[in-house]
Amino acid sequence: MRVLLVGAGGVGTAVTRIAARRPFFDLMVVADYDPARAEAAVTALGDDRFRAERVDAGDEAAVAALLARHGCDVLLNATDPRFVMPLFRAARKAGASYLDMAMSLSRPHPERPYEECGVKLGDEQFALAGEWEEAGALALVGMGVEPGLSDVFARYAADELFDQIEEIGIRDGANLTVDGYDFAPSFSIWTTIEECLNPPVVYEKGRGWFTTAPFSEPEVFDFPDGIGPVECVNVEHEEVLLVPRWVDARRVTFKYGLGREFIETLKTLHLLGLDRTTPVTVPGADGPVAVSPRDVVAASLPDPATLGERMRGKTCAGTWVRGVKDRQPREVYLYHVVDNEWSMAEYGCQAVVWQTALNPVVALELLATGGWSGSGVLGPEAFPARPFLDLLTEYGSPWGLREQ
Amino acid sequence: MRVLLVGAGGVGTAVTRIAARRPFFDLMVVADYDPARAEAAVTALGDDRFRAERVDAGDEAAVAALLARHGCDVLLNATDPRFVMPLFRAARKAGASYLDMAMSLSRPHPERPYEECGVKLGDEQFALAGEWEEAGALALVGMGVEPGLSDVFARYAADELFDQIEEIGIRDGANLTVDGYDFAPSFSIWTTIEECLNPPVVYEKGRGWFTTAPFSEPEVFDFPDGIGPVECVNVEHEEVLLVPRWVDARRVTFKYGLGREFIETLKTLHLLGLDRTTPVTVPGADGPVAVSPRDVVAASLPDPATLGERMRGKTCAGTWVRGVKDRQPREVYLYHVVDNEWSMAEYGCQAVVWQTALNPVVALELLATGGWSGSGVLGPEAFPARPFLDLLTEYGSPWGLREQ
Repeated sequence: MRVLLVGAGGVGTAVTRIAARRPFFDLMVVADYDPARAEAAVTALGDDRFRAERVDAGDEAAVAALLARHGCDVLLNATDPRFVMPLFRAARKAGASYLDMAMSLSRPHPERPYEECGVKLGDEQFALAGEWEEAGALALVGMGVEPGLSDVFARYAADELFDQIEEIGIRDGANLTVDGYDFAPSFSIWTTIEECLNPPVVYEKGRGWFTTAPFSEPEVFDFPDGIGPVECVNVEHEEVLLVPRWVDARRVTFKYGLGREFIETLKTLHLLGLDRTTPVTVPGADGPVAVSPRDVVAASLPDPATLGERMRGKTCAGTWVRGVKDRQPREVYLYHVVDNEWSMAEYGCQAVVWQTALNPVVALELLATGGWSGSGVLGPEAFPARPFLDLLTEYGSPWGLREQ
Repeated sequence: MRVLLVGAGGVGTAVTRIAARRPFFDLMVVADYDPARAEAAVTALGDDRFRAERVDAGDEAAVAALLARHGCDVLLNATDPRFVMPLFRAARKAGASYLDMAMSLSRPHPERPYEECGVKLGDEQFALAGEWEEAGALALVGMGVEPGLSDVFARYAADELFDQIEEIGIRDGANLTVDGYDFAPSFSIWTTIEECLNPPVVYEKGRGWFTTAPFSEPEVFDFPDGIGPVECVNVEHEEVLLVPRWVDARRVTFKYGLGREFIETLKTLHLLGLDRTTPVTVPGADGPVAVSPRDVVAASLPDPATLGERMRGKTCAGTWVRGVKDRQPREVYLYHVVDNEWSMAEYGCQAVVWQTALNPVVALELLATGGWSGSGVLGPEAFPARPFLDLLTEYGSPWGLREQ
């Protein structure tokens, strides 16, 4: 297998460190808009299967040419979601498979944003599914940890744990703290604002997809491995769009364990208009300048990529499922926990970043070895779950199941 | 009397509208850095006692020259507190009296900011008191509504209502709302952050002045005239520095009725570092630009100067006093309430702005007519209170007393 990895940020760099320990590929080209980032990732490995390149992820033709030049058979997208569509189209053009960890962006319903869906996450990608099917080519979308592993868990529950599923609820929570900071989100606040202030999407059988107001249906979920209870609220996330396409469930939700303080903080940012990306004009050194308030919020906080060494605690991604097995009610939580001190010591990667990067590498290995195969635009739940979960354990990062 | 008014913003413009109805002065020169603002204030009046000029309030020599050119005998400072010292020195240099509504700025104690005072509000002005006394010249500092009228109330309580005073607590609260906005402060958020996040100062007899953590000693104060209960917290304010110099009290505090939601909002801004004025670097249209997060917060909210028409409710400034009269315990609240719909209809000025501007005009009239006289650097409580309160009533804006 010959891979083009686009994006050498936190997640991309973690992908290289995880993949470097595995024999399943012959070449991984690491391409970034900033050649120094790509170079740094590659040099650190001392593994001649890796090569650094410069590429603009928004330049479809340049990406397709790079795939062709290196004879890559798969493109792994580790950039930010704005580049999903050009990279997705470039892979199709070059005849390569495509993997990403977040899907094409949504747009709220113009009149009823908190009741109806507008353009949904992934809609632009699924609109092109016919092209991929006809070509017998594969786009595996939403293949990080959430979406990604959470979708694999949903499929596993349907295949092996339940006869009938009432509700599938992805539940994400952590107890990460950063030494020396009263407030330091462990993931990009820019993206967190985007996720949390977009209208959350919910799926119900018979009704289909619909939206609610931000921060709806708060619940306290008890996370395993010592993380404990965290307040979770509905958030727009890919799993809600993916799971119902392949798994039969009456209801699908995603709730993010933001915790009370963080929820209140995001509400305040929204109230003050500081979540906006439309520029405001403020004094600069050489006269008035226009800046995005959300960029200023992000710039005022420490860069989460630099906090790994000061961070303590664990992050948990998982899928809670309620239904019936052998005519008995059953409720389980399938989960994957990463301890930051472990991921820092073992890979030099912050826990959330490492957990995101691990899953596409496992998926690439399954595709390389034939454990997974398919064509069209498919989510992780379109594939058998067992091989994925077994390989995850082989990677040294086992998953858990809690009956509840 | 010939007056130089520096600053034709909201408060300065309100000063001109209030003064225009009174006969006590011959000339009021309205000077601003932006000549269009000065011109607009003057043109609107159609009163040839007013003249517009351009001046840089930070240019001491230019201000002194302007005072001399127009033969002004008093400078009224209606600019922001950064210009207190140059204007204060310019007035002294030109031999004019000086009035302001906020005193020279404080600086926190370098090691123990939340326990000890560093440089206090007004310290720089009081350091020059000897010069003013020797010259027989008057600087009347802190002569707005708070500080200002609140200090007059303290003196009135000491002179006429109490034999002995335990505590003087300035209490400021409002029930102003802005149609069409969920969150729209009625006063500059930039200044509010400055006031609320500086270490609050408290005075106690025997101990002197000391500071506390921000938002300390929360209490719910019941404001009169239908405003009702509002949560108040300690805030750094001039009265605490002025009152004990002339009025005998065991304790002096200032508490600002911010309300629970606003207090939480300010705490969040502080937690996120968005209260800071040190620049952060963010993307701009032509590359990275450095901006102050606090400027961005201010720019994201509607400009309070433009909200008068959409604002409803009342603002209350006042002084709560507890002590002994005729051997009986006594507790009173002396207050002044302005209804925004009234001030908009009557003067075209927002309530908080109008209430601030009213008091220095009353003081100017007392100085012009000889009702008040003195020399040195003096606060409003250095003068007899009764003539001021009577003249306030004559201006059509009476004060109130609540026994409690």
